[in-house]
Amino acid sequence: MKIKIMTIFPQMFAGFLNTSIIKRAIDNKLIEIEIVDFRQYSKDKNKRVDDYPYGGGAGMILSCQPVLDCLSEIKSDNSFVIITDPAGKRFDQSLAKQYSQKDELVIICGHYEGFDGRIYDFVDEKVSIGDYVLTGGELASMVISDAVSRLVDGVISSNSTCEESFENDLLEYKQYTRPQIYNGMAVPEVLVSGHHENIRLYRLKEQLKNTYLYRKDLLKKHQFTEEEKRLMKEIIEEHD
Amino acid sequence: MKIKIMTIFPQMFAGFLNTSIIKRAIDNKLIEIEIVDFRQYSKDKNKRVDDYPYGGGAGMILSCQPVLDCLSEIKSDNSFVIITDPAGKRFDQSLAKQYSQKDELVIICGHYEGFDGRIYDFVDEKVSIGDYVLTGGELASMVISDAVSRLVDGVISSNSTCEESFENDLLEYKQYTRPQIYNGMAVPEVLVSGHHENIRLYRLKEQLKNTYLYRKDLLKKHQFTEEEKRLMKEIIEEHD
Repeated sequence: MKIKIMTIFPQMFAGFLNTSIIKRAIDNKLIEIEIVDFRQYSKDKNKRVDDYPYGGGAGMILSCQPVLDCLSEIKSDNSFVIITDPAGKRFDQSLAKQYSQKDELVIICGHYEGFDGRIYDFVDEKVSIGDYVLTGGELASMVISDAVSRLVDGVISSNSTCEESFENDLLEYKQYTRPQIYNGMAVPEVLVSGHHENIRLYRLKEQLKNTYLYRKDLLKKHQFTEEEKRLMKEIIEEHD
Repeated sequence: MKIKIMTIFPQMFAGFLNTSIIKRAIDNKLIEIEIVDFRQYSKDKNKRVDDYPYGGGAGMILSCQPVLDCLSEIKSDNSFVIITDPAGKRFDQSLAKQYSQKDELVIICGHYEGFDGRIYDFVDEKVSIGDYVLTGGELASMVISDAVSRLVDGVISSNSTCEESFENDLLEYKQYTRPQIYNGMAVPEVLVSGHHENIRLYRLKEQLKNTYLYRKDLLKKHQFTEEEKRLMKEIIEEHD
């Protein structure tokens, strides 16, 4: 899979591309991430990429010319073009999965007050990583690239993706590692019992309990098994 | 304001700290961001920071010792300690505002499968930037630091923060800049009319319309003025 990121702050991506799982995935040619500085496409003699808004207002607006010229040069027929935008579709794990199945993703990072409105006509989807305002779209594009890349086949072992948060609409259970007692705090007994079935039930109940206590909204989309229905009944009795 | 970020990938932050608004805020001593490598606190002879989970399962768990020793050394009485966690409170603009009023924020970045459950007892708040899974908490900690830093007094001009998305629970209106016609696409007439009142009304209606079309949920918390109620009526008639 190929991800092309259009930005005016290419240097911001160095740490992201050189660390850990993403670096290994790039080295192993499982993913390709290209950072494209769209300032290079500006036809302005000072390489300006923004200008004052029509109708007045604070801040500067990114202009059509550098953005659209860059986009038309780097995109191919297989590109899916997204732009980071607080007004966009909410990015979540299911959208990450959809994107991970694309051949090529082009992500345009915003800055300053926003883009010229005409640029949106060339974009397939506006995407928001959350209801907060960032100084620019660079971090948002890294978040999207990271969440998408790790779902590409081979990037991480399939064991580690299958049991994690949101995969089945439940939060994770708490985990523990050595020592069994740390500064007087002990690991839950059942986890050191060696009794696999009890451990499985304990963890499933913890997942349901955490989701019930902290993210009830996720339970609405969850398909309960008979076993889960029974555990939920216990949890509700214990907490109400 | 001071932000301390605990991570085992300190090199990942170089681009973030050296770019644009964040760099200027640090240079101007408006914010201070310290990256702390908690691997340095490991008492293991190979500086290991993780171990296998009790009760079995895929992946590794970050251990109590390096994390808690690091935390107890760097935190002060004024620290508010958060940990990035998909099961956490949802980070949003109002949480960013709360955090921006703290003296000191300590952010612990997770990695691998998670932290030993006992570490959470030393944390004030678990925070999630969205319903998706990242390879680690580093990007989440940058997102939080970025959203918080820009709200610290003096970091960006107050004009640019007051009219933006989520400030009044409405999405932004589209903006346009020169040229007035680009490849046959024109800027909306009203914006080049010079008629300030019409421009104001056009933009307010655009905000209401975008929010109505793409994020109806935000309208639920919005306090409508009489003028906005009238515009909403028009919008609903035009779109239903």
